[in-house]
Amino acid sequence: MTIERIPVGRDSVVHIGPGLLASAGDYLTSPSGRFVLFASPNAGAAAEAVRRALVGRLLVDETLDDREEAKTLAAVEGLAGAALSAGLRRDDAVVAVGGGVTSDVAGFAAAILLRGVVWHAVPTTTGAMADAAIGGKTGVDHAAGKNLLGAFHPPLTILIDPAAVATLPDRDFRAGLVEAYKAACIGDADLAASMEQGLEAILAREESALLACLAGAVRVKAAIVSEDPREGDRRRLLNFGHTLGHAFEAASGFRNLKHGEAVAWGIAAALEVSRRRAHLPASEAQRVRQTLARLGPFPAPPREAAVLAPFLARDKKATARGIAGVVLTAVGHARVEEAVPEEEWLQAADIMSLS
Amino acid sequence: MTIERIPVGRDSVVHIGPGLLASAGDYLTSPSGRFVLFASPNAGAAAEAVRRALVGRLLVDETLDDREEAKTLAAVEGLAGAALSAGLRRDDAVVAVGGGVTSDVAGFAAAILLRGVVWHAVPTTTGAMADAAIGGKTGVDHAAGKNLLGAFHPPLTILIDPAAVATLPDRDFRAGLVEAYKAACIGDADLAASMEQGLEAILAREESALLACLAGAVRVKAAIVSEDPREGDRRRLLNFGHTLGHAFEAASGFRNLKHGEAVAWGIAAALEVSRRRAHLPASEAQRVRQTLARLGPFPAPPREAAVLAPFLARDKKATARGIAGVVLTAVGHARVEEAVPEEEWLQAADIMSLS
Repeated sequence: MTIERIPVGRDSVVHIGPGLLASAGDYLTSPSGRFVLFASPNAGAAAEAVRRALVGRLLVDETLDDREEAKTLAAVEGLAGAALSAGLRRDDAVVAVGGGVTSDVAGFAAAILLRGVVWHAVPTTTGAMADAAIGGKTGVDHAAGKNLLGAFHPPLTILIDPAAVATLPDRDFRAGLVEAYKAACIGDADLAASMEQGLEAILAREESALLACLAGAVRVKAAIVSEDPREGDRRRLLNFGHTLGHAFEAASGFRNLKHGEAVAWGIAAALEVSRRRAHLPASEAQRVRQTLARLGPFPAPPREAAVLAPFLARDKKATARGIAGVVLTAVGHARVEEAVPEEEWLQAADIMSLS
Repeated sequence: MTIERIPVGRDSVVHIGPGLLASAGDYLTSPSGRFVLFASPNAGAAAEAVRRALVGRLLVDETLDDREEAKTLAAVEGLAGAALSAGLRRDDAVVAVGGGVTSDVAGFAAAILLRGVVWHAVPTTTGAMADAAIGGKTGVDHAAGKNLLGAFHPPLTILIDPAAVATLPDRDFRAGLVEAYKAACIGDADLAASMEQGLEAILAREESALLACLAGAVRVKAAIVSEDPREGDRRRLLNFGHTLGHAFEAASGFRNLKHGEAVAWGIAAALEVSRRRAHLPASEAQRVRQTLARLGPFPAPPREAAVLAPFLARDKKATARGIAGVVLTAVGHARVEEAVPEEEWLQAADIMSLS
């Protein structure tokens, strides 16, 4: 099998394929030759492979708490402090090995250290491979909501080796695939069809099926981000399922629902809005629901309007005009719907289903 | 008198002239029409003028501690939290009213809030008017050194009204003018000459003399930043006097020396390096020393190599090749000197004088 190279905008390149971890040293570069490693405690073999590749060149080897509740500015300060205390210079590079929380926190640290040093992402979850590690969004949560403090700071390199998810717990593996399917829904009908058809092989972690699914998702995201590196209209398509998804996640205290699980429910709700506003055929909505159900089952989110409303109002996409959302016109085709009233989102949360 | 408009790169515009505070509402814009005010407790009449201009449109009115020792990530988190708790949206704008610490901290908060909201700077010290509020560098200090965590996030607008320094203590007023004279030294021989000739009028805060000096400094910085918005070679010229200046400041715990005072000593040391490496004539070095002496007297900095060395090593401009510095070839003409050995800086600190 070969390594595929997928540019993301002008600043990042994804390398995806089997055996990448073993040759990580060929891809991870640093102007000074020195590196700072920030790794999730669950990064296991992937972190070990990076350590071996960079032996003798690691200025810092720091483990970070990668639970969503530890995604705080204090965590960023902790990582930054470790790097600065070790004498970090502007020409050193950060390497983040882990899931979405790791790339969000470590990438944000790289963004603000000395006003920005280069970094590389080695994602070790399906969610980070399909979504979180790509595109340059980094950041942390705040009491008022998710990802409210952060920076756009794309990693120079993203290394995706399917071996890195070999020991990922099944629940995380499945939740992360929701982001891959989301990418298919908004931008690649063929990918959606092939995921639906090959889902058993993907869930069994068969290498070629998994690689095809992840590479497809990366291509969708790369195409969108390349066209719109900040958050203009086009990039907002990637938020499909995230308007209510973030509210579900925050309302459950970032504990009961994993990010991908919350997004699955967010997509279920967005399908209801899509039916009303974008004439999404009932059969297409049903097809998406059934595929998500096969990725699940997912714990039930809070649905009460009184619980969800405060979190919806804090959505970063909320403006004076209302809360923007993403709707499907068909599987593989999405558009931004400006200013969907809060009540309509809450009603969608009330009636949504995943079956 | 008229208002001068000076663009800084593609993102910022400086408006400078008398009476600007009274018409601040004409210059401060916000996509949503809503504003967040972060003001220094010493901003006095300037903050009041901004409050009057934005009455009924202030989502948050927060006072921040503007001492150098309060320039921390925790302070940024405090400001960001106040804005988020009040329901900040992406289309709101931040206004920072105060000196350099205020624009550094409030600008950094604007940079990371929702991954970046627009902001305006209303500087109220000579140092912030001539330097700190212009150019987009924001950030906070860390135990390991000054400005080690931050972002490039230029303010949309910088409003410079000389009335804002009416009540500035004389020591701060004089220290801030060191940055204006620094700008003249690196990029405008005529400005240096006119500052030297008109220094008594400037120190007496005569409006036209002060405006001419500040506008001249802004034009030098704007020209450099427009050519080099991040920190390439050209922009590094602005660091003249800052290599040892930052070390003096950090080594004295950010208490005994004000930033501009530390930079004055840093320039004194850089003159020694300039004599050796750039053939700066003795008469030119003496002229700069004498002008700085007239801006002083400034408290003596620590000169001991053992005290200064650790802070020099943490300079952001330190790379594997050594510590880059800025030298004068003549008053009004500077260049970057790569990799000046640490010992040479320490020797310069040992022999420098200001008289």
